[in-house]
Amino acid sequence: MATHKLLLLPGDGIGTEVMAEVKKVMSWLDAQGIASFAIEEDLVGGAAYDSCGLPISEEAMAKAFAADAILLGAVGGPKWANVPYEARPEAGLLRLRKDLQLFANLRPALCYPALADASSLKRELVEGLDLLIVRELTGGVYFGEPKTITDISDGQKRAVDTQVYESYEIERIARVAFELARTRRGKVVSTEKHNVMKTGVLWKQVVSEVHGSEYSDVTLEHQLADSCGMQLVRAPKQFDVIVTDNLFGDILSDVAAMLTGSLGMLPSASLGGVEEISGKRRALYEPVHGAAPDIAGKGLANPIAMVGSLAMALRYSFGQIEAADRVEAAIAGVLAAGYRTGDIYSEGMTRVGTAGMGDAIVAEL
Amino acid sequence: MATHKLLLLPGDGIGTEVMAEVKKVMSWLDAQGIASFAIEEDLVGGAAYDSCGLPISEEAMAKAFAADAILLGAVGGPKWANVPYEARPEAGLLRLRKDLQLFANLRPALCYPALADASSLKRELVEGLDLLIVRELTGGVYFGEPKTITDISDGQKRAVDTQVYESYEIERIARVAFELARTRRGKVVSTEKHNVMKTGVLWKQVVSEVHGSEYSDVTLEHQLADSCGMQLVRAPKQFDVIVTDNLFGDILSDVAAMLTGSLGMLPSASLGGVEEISGKRRALYEPVHGAAPDIAGKGLANPIAMVGSLAMALRYSFGQIEAADRVEAAIAGVLAAGYRTGDIYSEGMTRVGTAGMGDAIVAEL
Ligand SMILES: CC(C)[C@H](C(=O)O)[C@@H](O)C(=O)O
Ligand SMILES: CC(C)[C@H](C(=O)O)[C@@H](O)C(=O)O
Repeated sequence: MATHKLLLLPGDGIGTEVMAEVKKVMSWLDAQGIASFAIEEDLVGGAAYDSCGLPISEEAMAKAFAADAILLGAVGGPKWANVPYEARPEAGLLRLRKDLQLFANLRPALCYPALADASSLKRELVEGLDLLIVRELTGGVYFGEPKTITDISDGQKRAVDTQVYESYEIERIARVAFELARTRRGKVVSTEKHNVMKTGVLWKQVVSEVHGSEYSDVTLEHQLADSCGMQLVRAPKQFDVIVTDNLFGDILSDVAAMLTGSLGMLPSASLGGVEEISGKRRALYEPVHGAAPDIAGKGLANPIAMVGSLAMALRYSFGQIEAADRVEAAIAGVLAAGYRTGDIYSEGMTRVGTAGMGDAIVAEL
Repeated sequence: MATHKLLLLPGDGIGTEVMAEVKKVMSWLDAQGIASFAIEEDLVGGAAYDSCGLPISEEAMAKAFAADAILLGAVGGPKWANVPYEARPEAGLLRLRKDLQLFANLRPALCYPALADASSLKRELVEGLDLLIVRELTGGVYFGEPKTITDISDGQKRAVDTQVYESYEIERIARVAFELARTRRGKVVSTEKHNVMKTGVLWKQVVSEVHGSEYSDVTLEHQLADSCGMQLVRAPKQFDVIVTDNLFGDILSDVAAMLTGSLGMLPSASLGGVEEISGKRRALYEPVHGAAPDIAGKGLANPIAMVGSLAMALRYSFGQIEAADRVEAAIAGVLAAGYRTGDIYSEGMTRVGTAGMGDAIVAEL
């Protein structure tokens, strides 16, 4: 049994609570001889800032480079509203993404049958929904320079952000999307604003070229980002894989997640390239939800997204597909059995807290 | 009875068809002595490109400057997919917005009671929905420089877009939002990504300052753009006025429009400042929907958004509130009476085409 080097970064708010539950699942996998983990742990976000004045320490970054995969809880909270911009909690997460070159953010939006009624959308529009947003994560307006605020005159300021994309960045994310579509329903929608943005013009052109030269077996459609937002609300089941840039991906994946009614339940993977020498792929796994300061510390948070993130790690980093399937089946199992944390509670179901849900998943395994 | 100088720019696709219907309403208002119009007409978008090689001619721009208000149909279509970037149909609309300094784009998202079932959302979530998106329209990533694609090496290209905001641009749009909130339910949500964008940092700061110094009677909340997208799906009725930048406004207003189930029915206003010398406010009114090339020329398009745009012109440009109310009541009336174009048809209703709907509205007036 191979040992996986895992770095745990619980972060802030409910991040620490849901991380405690995923540890139970890891212990179980270890005890069963299914997977063994060498675990390191460190701080990120506000917790790191409170301890060392930085949103992630150099030691933690070194551990991140050494790990086979990273599990992250969540970062942020009102407590750090006034820390300097460079040291805000989010900067820790952004540094991990950028320095480890985790360019491909996979965000499945899956509607669990047991939860279809929790969606804002009519049941028939979301039942069976299973789409995947492939978001570019290390480029675009998040990282482009200049990125400044300057004083101009009379108390007036000018703020500038810069969205930059080079062909190779678009090529590699397009390939990830087409490859994943081949393992799914074979359909990719590429989303940009080529009618007002030059990065959108290049995006559309490069995605079309990659498609034409290597993936013409996959169906490709282009949608403007505003239309895509509309179509997600109108008929989300038309989508299989959506590939888009960092900023559009941020908004559209949140809209897609909310559609499912399963927001507290959705995991995500952020993958880098496979390194030529070591054959290793850097990767970070985290829930789509945030630090939820309003319910933090109360034992109410839903740990399913965090446990689902471990399942994604088993699948994409460790090649343990069976173990991944087993964890995901346990999640579906506890839902079918009626266990519900507060965020997904409905009448007649069994209400549990964070630990209760973690225990139920282990029991189901 | 004052005469309003109106420039009609039908544009492309269904733009020309819906414009024909709003003319019937203008004739009726004229015949009744309610409002009189001095009408000019010109080309914009692909139609203008086909005629003069530009997406809007200098003559049309001169007419736009001379008019009291502009009614625009829609621009764009696959026919012009390969025209040069600077001459694409959208560029005509963007030039009107920029040169006339129409910085405030008002996009109401209203759920007509008769159509609540057409929404993707559960009826109780959208019934009575009445929110207004106030979108900055002359700044941000739409117009910032540099905006380029350059060859770098080996067939690699680099594309750049620049988002720029100066304090005064944020101040003036914030004021529009707060003023409108005062005439409504007194609540503004300001939306940006201050956690990753410097323009978001400045946006949040300036909106807060304008609020604190002049509008503390209005409730102000800040939401990140991704959260706002989620909240629009989760519980849209929490919103009264949302104020946001050009790009976020583009996506969020399309999502909001689609929520209502009334997409083909929603008008918009793009307003400039009031000029000190003439006391005149430049303004352009247009449907939220696009040129819909798939149904163009078939007499199927829904003209209600275009007629609603005239109502907005009566309200915001001509101060004819009663006439505006009357036109809007006629729209609600034909819907209550069961008239439906194909986009909003449901069983048991009376199916009409573009002209049939226009006639029904005039009859209802
Ligand atoms: C926390 C924040 C920086 C982040 C982002 O904007 O990417 C978050 O919204 C996400 O989607 O992971
Ligand atoms: C046609 C296009 C340039 C435009 C925009 O992106 O602003 C449209 O989507 C809109 O919202 O009015």
